[in-house]
Amino acid sequence: MGKKFVYMFSEGNGSMRELLGGKGANLAEMTGLGMPVPQGFTVTTEACTQYYADGQRINDDIQAEIFKNLENLEKISGKKFGDPENPLLVSVRSGARASMPGMMDTILNLGLNDEVVESFAKKTNNPRFAYDSYRRFIQMYSDVVMEVGKAYFEKLIDEMKEKKGVTMDTDLDADDLKELARLFKAEYKEKKGVDFPTDPKEQLMGAVMAVFRSWDNPRAIYYRRMNDIPSSWGTAVNVQMMVFGNTGDTSGTGVAFTRNPATGEKKLFGEFLMNAQGEDVVAGVRTPQTIDQLAKIMPDAYNQFVEICGRLEKHYRDMQDMEFTIENKKLYMLQTRNGKRTAAAALKIACDLVDEGMISEKEAVCMIDPKQLDALLHPQFDAKALKAAKPIGSALPASPGAACGKVVFTAEKAVERAAAGDKVVLVRLETSPEDIEGMHVSQGILTVRGGMTSHAAVVARGMGTCCVSGCGEIKMDEANGCFTLGGNTYHEGDYISLDGTTGNIYGEAIPTVAADISGDFGRIMNWADQFRTLQVRTNADTPRDAKQAVSFGAQGVGLCRTEHMFFEGERIKAVREMIVSKTEEQRRAALAKLLPMQRGDFEAIYEALEGKPVTIRYLDPPLHEFLPTVEEDIIELANEMRMDLTDLKAVIASLHEFNPMMGHRGCRLAVSYPEIAEMQTQAVIEAALNVSKKHPDWNLVPEIMIPLVGEVKELAYVKGIVVKTADKIIADAKSDMKYKVGTMIEIPRAALTADEIAKEAEFFSFGTNDLTQMTFGFSRDDAGNFLSYYYDKKIYESDPFARLDQTGVGKLVEMAAKLGRQTRPDIKLGICGEHGGDPSTVEFCHKVGLNYVSCSPFRVPIARLAAAQAAIKFPKN
Amino acid sequence: MGKKFVYMFSEGNGSMRELLGGKGANLAEMTGLGMPVPQGFTVTTEACTQYYADGQRINDDIQAEIFKNLENLEKISGKKFGDPENPLLVSVRSGARASMPGMMDTILNLGLNDEVVESFAKKTNNPRFAYDSYRRFIQMYSDVVMEVGKAYFEKLIDEMKEKKGVTMDTDLDADDLKELARLFKAEYKEKKGVDFPTDPKEQLMGAVMAVFRSWDNPRAIYYRRMNDIPSSWGTAVNVQMMVFGNTGDTSGTGVAFTRNPATGEKKLFGEFLMNAQGEDVVAGVRTPQTIDQLAKIMPDAYNQFVEICGRLEKHYRDMQDMEFTIENKKLYMLQTRNGKRTAAAALKIACDLVDEGMISEKEAVCMIDPKQLDALLHPQFDAKALKAAKPIGSALPASPGAACGKVVFTAEKAVERAAAGDKVVLVRLETSPEDIEGMHVSQGILTVRGGMTSHAAVVARGMGTCCVSGCGEIKMDEANGCFTLGGNTYHEGDYISLDGTTGNIYGEAIPTVAADISGDFGRIMNWADQFRTLQVRTNADTPRDAKQAVSFGAQGVGLCRTEHMFFEGERIKAVREMIVSKTEEQRRAALAKLLPMQRGDFEAIYEALEGKPVTIRYLDPPLHEFLPTVEEDIIELANEMRMDLTDLKAVIASLHEFNPMMGHRGCRLAVSYPEIAEMQTQAVIEAALNVSKKHPDWNLVPEIMIPLVGEVKELAYVKGIVVKTADKIIADAKSDMKYKVGTMIEIPRAALTADEIAKEAEFFSFGTNDLTQMTFGFSRDDAGNFLSYYYDKKIYESDPFARLDQTGVGKLVEMAAKLGRQTRPDIKLGICGEHGGDPSTVEFCHKVGLNYVSCSPFRVPIARLAAAQAAIKFPKN
Repeated sequence: MGKKFVYMFSEGNGSMRELLGGKGANLAEMTGLGMPVPQGFTVTTEACTQYYADGQRINDDIQAEIFKNLENLEKISGKKFGDPENPLLVSVRSGARASMPGMMDTILNLGLNDEVVESFAKKTNNPRFAYDSYRRFIQMYSDVVMEVGKAYFEKLIDEMKEKKGVTMDTDLDADDLKELARLFKAEYKEKKGVDFPTDPKEQLMGAVMAVFRSWDNPRAIYYRRMNDIPSSWGTAVNVQMMVFGNTGDTSGTGVAFTRNPATGEKKLFGEFLMNAQGEDVVAGVRTPQTIDQLAKIMPDAYNQFVEICGRLEKHYRDMQDMEFTIENKKLYMLQTRNGKRTAAAALKIACDLVDEGMISEKEAVCMIDPKQLDALLHPQFDAKALKAAKPIGSALPASPGAACGKVVFTAEKAVERAAAGDKVVLVRLETSPEDIEGMHVSQGILTVRGGMTSHAAVVARGMGTCCVSGCGEIKMDEANGCFTLGGNTYHEGDYISLDGTTGNIYGEAIPTVAADISGDFGRIMNWADQFRTLQVRTNADTPRDAKQAVSFGAQGVGLCRTEHMFFEGERIKAVREMIVSKTEEQRRAALAKLLPMQRGDFEAIYEALEGKPVTIRYLDPPLHEFLPTVEEDIIELANEMRMDLTDLKAVIASLHEFNPMMGHRGCRLAVSYPEIAEMQTQAVIEAALNVSKKHPDWNLVPEIMIPLVGEVKELAYVKGIVVKTADKIIADAKSDMKYKVGTMIEIPRAALTADEIAKEAEFFSFGTNDLTQMTFGFSRDDAGNFLSYYYDKKIYESDPFARLDQTGVGKLVEMAAKLGRQTRPDIKLGICGEHGGDPSTVEFCHKVGLNYVSCSPFRVPIARLAAAQAAIKFPKN
Repeated sequence: MGKKFVYMFSEGNGSMRELLGGKGANLAEMTGLGMPVPQGFTVTTEACTQYYADGQRINDDIQAEIFKNLENLEKISGKKFGDPENPLLVSVRSGARASMPGMMDTILNLGLNDEVVESFAKKTNNPRFAYDSYRRFIQMYSDVVMEVGKAYFEKLIDEMKEKKGVTMDTDLDADDLKELARLFKAEYKEKKGVDFPTDPKEQLMGAVMAVFRSWDNPRAIYYRRMNDIPSSWGTAVNVQMMVFGNTGDTSGTGVAFTRNPATGEKKLFGEFLMNAQGEDVVAGVRTPQTIDQLAKIMPDAYNQFVEICGRLEKHYRDMQDMEFTIENKKLYMLQTRNGKRTAAAALKIACDLVDEGMISEKEAVCMIDPKQLDALLHPQFDAKALKAAKPIGSALPASPGAACGKVVFTAEKAVERAAAGDKVVLVRLETSPEDIEGMHVSQGILTVRGGMTSHAAVVARGMGTCCVSGCGEIKMDEANGCFTLGGNTYHEGDYISLDGTTGNIYGEAIPTVAADISGDFGRIMNWADQFRTLQVRTNADTPRDAKQAVSFGAQGVGLCRTEHMFFEGERIKAVREMIVSKTEEQRRAALAKLLPMQRGDFEAIYEALEGKPVTIRYLDPPLHEFLPTVEEDIIELANEMRMDLTDLKAVIASLHEFNPMMGHRGCRLAVSYPEIAEMQTQAVIEAALNVSKKHPDWNLVPEIMIPLVGEVKELAYVKGIVVKTADKIIADAKSDMKYKVGTMIEIPRAALTADEIAKEAEFFSFGTNDLTQMTFGFSRDDAGNFLSYYYDKKIYESDPFARLDQTGVGKLVEMAAKLGRQTRPDIKLGICGEHGGDPSTVEFCHKVGLNYVSCSPFRVPIARLAAAQAAIKFPKN
């Protein structure tokens, strides 16, 4: 034995959430506070884990412990389970550490059978109530425990109501309900082939197992994956004496929040329903009354409830979400928990609680879920207009926010229309790097193919642009310049709207409202900045993105990808010219054309950052990404370059790679063609010198980042070119400007040999996207083909590209940080890549002692908050 | 100062090879032994390193030290550098730690100029000798130091001989040679624009720098890369007083070995040339005499030489390769070193030295270069026939050995002809996995495309089949079933021959002789087996390969790749059927067809191994590798499978991957389609049970290896399927057979989390091919596009796919071995992949404590020897 698997409510308390689940711990806590809680007991989360370890069975020890506590409950209540004379009835409810949709919720009235219900009817002198309770029980038990769908029973109720000519359940009388209970049992027998279980203990064990089982249903698994909840946590089960809100007009049941969960307003918010039980309130069969109406109907119960609400909020020091039942005017508390709330409400409540002196600023900062902030940072649909609209389809919510604009089908058209002042939504089969400019000017992006990590999705998230991806139902008709969805055809210029948060697509214009960064938001961010030790930078390739990020509080650019600048307009021609060059001379001529453009880009970024640091990464992608793939584009290029078509095709073919991710890219390009690194150095240094002349007080120190290094000699070689070029330009300009040369750590070998690499690198930036790919040995572009199997089989529980794998990839990061500091104690360490905006990754970065995280502009506030929470949770000495 | 950069020969000794280079150390050693060595000094290897550190200049300190030692030499010799009255002349020769082709060799007679030569002629009373020395010096110095090609000077000599009507250099008289010296200097001035240097000290410094420079010429770099010599070693320079073999008929120069370097026979072997200097012996202008003829011409010098040979061999306890000069009947030793020898000679000499009591068995084992054994393990051309043949082309020597057979152009034809008894050579544009069977039955493989690591090369080396790859000069005419090379056209059925060791291609039949594994070979291997602690297994997929490996001493199969069995004949159809299946049911039906074939394969392998352990790796490559790529094959498959063509094409397209190396392969297949692992388990276990029934004494314990694991849960899942399937079959058979389940460690994350993985894995086998790819982040198939730049720039000095990168990849291996043992102290650790047969990697595996290495059959003897050498070098306590 040893382990205790079952606790009476009176044995637990609020701190035992891990063992008792959230619901159980809070019921125990309220019991301890002397509040009116019906007694009961909690089967622990460890019993659930044991259930799975035992091959999905409840072992004899645990069952015995459950029955022992049941006896206890019988003693306390003076009632007996299954005793027709004085039956004990219970509810059975799940309760994980964190509330989780998708799991079994509740079975009420357990303990009833044909015999018990008879005497129950007599004893309560309320046969309608007794049979109502019974039919509810059969219905819930059949549905939840035995998987006989709810619909079968609802059909029988509807038939009964029709037969009786009534519309409300409450209009059915005791006999109707008795008959319904009979019909329900018959339905059950037909579906399951056996009689409905009459032994209350059998009912109880069935219900407990159903809760355990529901821990592992697909919806629950999906939810856990989305919320980083490990499957090993398990769920608890609460068995509680029934109280009844359905005994008549002096009874009822309701839910309430101590403050408004949508706005945060400090005012009791909730609803209740007379003569009803459990799920009736949320089921929407009858319209519930608002909580303040209860003051008139049952003032005593109401006043007691208000008093309890106040106590609970003070006790938990947070807004509470409660369930209660009134049985014959007597109030019972069935649940309390910290209430879910919108992002705006979360900010307001946190600020108000500080102002009310209930919590500290530190606590306020810790109270906000950083991920929730996302919703406040993007445009949203006008709420009223949205209510009136009906989606024509839906797909993957690839990048949040709302967008409304005119349909365009090509990036070129997007640029053209946007320049003319139109708001556009870009609709593509899939996007490619060549579409960057068009994506940039669009309000939203809709793709037919591609998942959450497709090019469109990744780029859109980076830009903070709304994107809905992978809408396979769209029929594209490129020939006629239109697409069909939901039975309608949309042409270029037609309005559509996208909701990147839900994935909904609308065939009409829905007005959007800009992000509202209210005062509470600012207060919380200011507090966060006081507590955090990690700096927050941004990944931005354009002045526009950079400015956006600075307005969100970014302290610099951690990753400026130079290649994104290569796709626009005339540049791509020069880039292609460079790529197909056969001699260094030709290549240098093409690079000379690119130089002024790159220099101009960098000047604009430096201007936008107003003296904050900028890390510029040198050319990274394999060269074939810049080449045309379609015959006519190839012909055009050949003509432009006065090149033989066969010759050009041979060049393109020679650049083909079997595994481009592991091919000729990153610093390997600079090793092969040092003149590329020369040109980029010239552009960076000259830009910094030019801007420094205008703003000498900014003290610019360019940070040059060499990507994809795996060996120190590789870095030393490229750094040699950079230093030689830069020093000459700086000397010629008679300047004493300093600059730094560092590297991405994104190849496992770089992490493993970071002590060597730090001899050359003045800073490390962990490129965790590629590091994850190489460390796991799977390609982000292809992983979609098999990761779904991995989630199904619980081999991976979260997406390693969204949340840093701390066990494997994190080990490399930690090792590299340690080795790097060993060689160069003042080395600056940061992380770039999408992980930089993930709160759990931010916490990890804080713990391993990085200096900064860098993330996309729209994640900057999230990272600031997460960094503050990490600093509070893991203070540095 | 501090560091001493120059040593007189009398200051050094044989143990100072690192500092003085091999030549310098041995000159010092012979000096110490009192042998007749002309005096001189050595500029150290550290001076060379310093030269590069100083930006390719010799700093003042080092130059001063050189001149100081020069003065010393002047004192000893009583001569003076540049003094017309009594000039000191020197030779300048390079000397790295190991002798290295491609480096500057020798400059003789340095110190001569127009003035000095005049008096030298008078003083020696031998003007012909003086001018011969002078013209030689100008020629060598111009060529080696100033890069004015030899050819210009040879042309002048030829013109002179023609003018004089003579054929031999020795027929030119003093005046002719004087005139030649004048013409040479004029030629020099024309080419270089300045006069030939007359200051002997300037000449000397120029020569020293030329030696240093030659350390970094492309041929030297290439040689170092091939032989794992780090560029940081540097070369030494030896400056030695001249002695002259060209003073007349009482002088001469020669080279000799103490034993025959081709056969190992214990008999002085060498040649000499009268009235000659340095390179004349090897240049082949005149035919030298054999060494024993010297006994008649100059018996005293000969006897002294024989005596010295004996002393040197005893002193160095190895066969010596010496250079000597006789000046006016007096013998001088100019060099001694351990002589290079053929593999056969190496074995014989080692055995003889043991029998002569000169060395121990341990020393004999350490004396053989393991890589050299390769030459003894493959068929070779009949030497006479080869001499008569002329290659029609040459390409990359991708897999060693010799092959002769009739041309076939397809794998099918190869199989058909081979079955009919023909010996065939398969000629392909490039090979693919579908060609495996055809490659197997061929004597040799010739490809038009692909490098040393192409499919053809890798597979051929694995099979031990001769292969010449990447012969771009071949014009394939598939339409007419022929190819053109070297001006001739070859049709199917024509004979060609390939030399996989040289890369030569012959347009005729050259008979081959089988590998000769003589008695000496066996003796050395037996000694090696006594010393080594590492086991040696083999990578073999077929009974034939397995038997071959056992005959070479393999102690088991370390890697049996099941997929290679999937390509043959009818099987590929079932495999394809499995792949395009849309339901588990269809897939199971296809797998059921494969089951008996796989079972049969495994039975045959178990039979071949006669009870030795076999590790079977489950299906690894991405499925698309098995699908047809050509339209007509796709149509055929669609017909066979009664599948809609568009449908089939859609399936094929859906299997396309951007980075297949990091895609849906390895255990990811078993996670997605557990029924594949089930079938393979059934095949393995049933095969083992069947063979056990026939041979109960073999005590078979199947070893099942799950590839590409990156996370312990992944392994646990697949292992779960294996165990469930295996246990049932074993129980049904009422057997108590044991089996093991282990994993490849080939994903960085697996190495990083090896402690976790060892909870499930009973053995680890390091798949260093993939581990290298992922750790470096480069694809083996694509790396050819950029690695050449890396070699050029000395970023990488050896091919990480041939020689394990001990710094990065090795760190992961060591870490994983340690973590694995931490969890499971008795875990068995091995390495498979091509590195397993590389001697330096074998040494590494011994050092980190692996239990075995596994390599291709033809590398087994190499690995056995390397393992013994490692055990001797790094004994375990």
